Amino acid sequence: MKLASFIIDKRYSFGIVQDGIVYDLSRLNPDSSDLKSFLASAPDMDAAAAQLADLPSYLLDAVQLLPVIPNPEKIICVGLNYESHRIETGMPEMKHPVLFTRFASTQVAHGEPVVRPNVSEKLDFEGELAVIIGQGGRHIRRDDAYQHVAGYACYNDASIRDWQMHTGQFTPGKNFDNSGAFGPWMVTPDEMTDLESHTVTTRLNGEQVQHAPFSDLIFDIPALIEYISTFCTLVAGDVIVTGTPGGVGVKRKPRLYMKPGDVIEVEITGVGVLRNPVVQEQ
Amino acid sequence: MKLASFIIDKRYSFGIVQDGIVYDLSRLNPDSSDLKSFLASAPDMDAAAAQLADLPSYLLDAVQLLPVIPNPEKIICVGLNYESHRIETGMPEMKHPVLFTRFASTQVAHGEPVVRPNVSEKLDFEGELAVIIGQGGRHIRRDDAYQHVAGYACYNDASIRDWQMHTGQFTPGKNFDNSGAFGPWMVTPDEMTDLESHTVTTRLNGEQVQHAPFSDLIFDIPALIEYISTFCTLVAGDVIVTGTPGGVGVKRKPRLYMKPGDVIEVEITGVGVLRNPVVQEQ
Repeated sequence: MKLASFIIDKRYSFGIVQDGIVYDLSRLNPDSSDLKSFLASAPDMDAAAAQLADLPSYLLDAVQLLPVIPNPEKIICVGLNYESHRIETGMPEMKHPVLFTRFASTQVAHGEPVVRPNVSEKLDFEGELAVIIGQGGRHIRRDDAYQHVAGYACYNDASIRDWQMHTGQFTPGKNFDNSGAFGPWMVTPDEMTDLESHTVTTRLNGEQVQHAPFSDLIFDIPALIEYISTFCTLVAGDVIVTGTPGGVGVKRKPRLYMKPGDVIEVEITGVGVLRNPVVQEQ
Repeated sequence: MKLASFIIDKRYSFGIVQDGIVYDLSRLNPDSSDLKSFLASAPDMDAAAAQLADLPSYLLDAVQLLPVIPNPEKIICVGLNYESHRIETGMPEMKHPVLFTRFASTQVAHGEPVVRPNVSEKLDFEGELAVIIGQGGRHIRRDDAYQHVAGYACYNDASIRDWQMHTGQFTPGKNFDNSGAFGPWMVTPDEMTDLESHTVTTRLNGEQVQHAPFSDLIFDIPALIEYISTFCTLVAGDVIVTGTPGGVGVKRKPRLYMKPGDVIEVEITGVGVLRNPVVQEQ
């Protein structure tokens, strides 16, 4: 099942996407104001699927998609989580996941422009698997971790490389406005049973620039959930952006940054394609 | 003027604190659901002050204080922003502010316990000046920066030192649940006109462990606002935690960490005292 957040008739809503149609779940779930709240309500997805014919529906093309979770309490990003990327950066092996954060306000939806700022031309792509938390918790053991996953989505953790490296902390380069693309929807775990065999692919103007199976993750999803929930309580709608494979623009010769007019895509098998144009900051 | 967030009769509210009385502003501001929204409404503080007698009021002791802004969109913390602390850490001088982030969910109010987690005994204090944003903006010039400041408060950016140093990114050690103390209230800028002459002092069980004037800040408040707003849009209620002076526990010989039963205080002249007991995670 695919779940999306969107705007219809100037109203924020969320629903199920199937065969080019969006089925509006908000009408049947008055206690859930958004997809995050809906996930927190431990919804019966089978029951929701059985009710599709009774739900208000719109053409997918007629709604304005939002970032999958527009308002997560936490976005936790993982650095250097593929060996191919770790090697290209020259960084040592890590005993623990490298974690940085992104503000929800930096996110854009599928189809919305990723913005190259006026202060830097070093706008780089990072195609990634996003894990969306359903049932929250603290001190989640790795054996229980998948019980806390509500779904998966494509993420482009676009980065301003020089600002990322201003100091040892990545914060500025990972938090430019309109830099984190998240969409078009999330897919529930029942459709991603053999997750390690799925792949992420990044394409810049149609040319493949990154590609890896999730079996290549150094810290897998249970390890990330166990580690993160040791220090903080995960809640519904939290997003773990699991890291990017080798091939980023800053490590290429010659370097390959995104520029206005480009189209950047992140595809995850079984999920879909997140596509964003690149524009210059106005 | 002192502004606080609090709970009264199981209801979230916010108001003006004066002489041990809290004046409830939410009743007069139905469009503002919390202090963040109130700050976003560009309130006329003089008008608010003139209406005190007409507002519902409670004894300060009768309300449950919340973190000054319980739900900021962004909490941006500054590392190594006092020369005394930079030197004790052995870090080089930086051309740019060292920025990391804290999730709103990690905050505690004045009087609430700071929690020492079960996974580490290296719970350290960091007394700091928090700047609360009023009028939002992007690309704010340093000459205009103070127009965007709604007020100042005490912050204890308590840190789990080993988890902070698991990798190069500080995120885990700065984001343990119940580790960021923020309170008891914020003070509006008209009461802090000569900010550089004010000081921050941290006391552990009554003993002074940190003390510095704000004239010692390496990157001053206008510099921080200018830099941060270059990459992201600041909005009302955003919190910039401006860094801690020398004297942290991890750099003392012998080391001095907080432990259950301790009381930690952060005092800023002209603002007040933020006081929190330390307890062990249950």
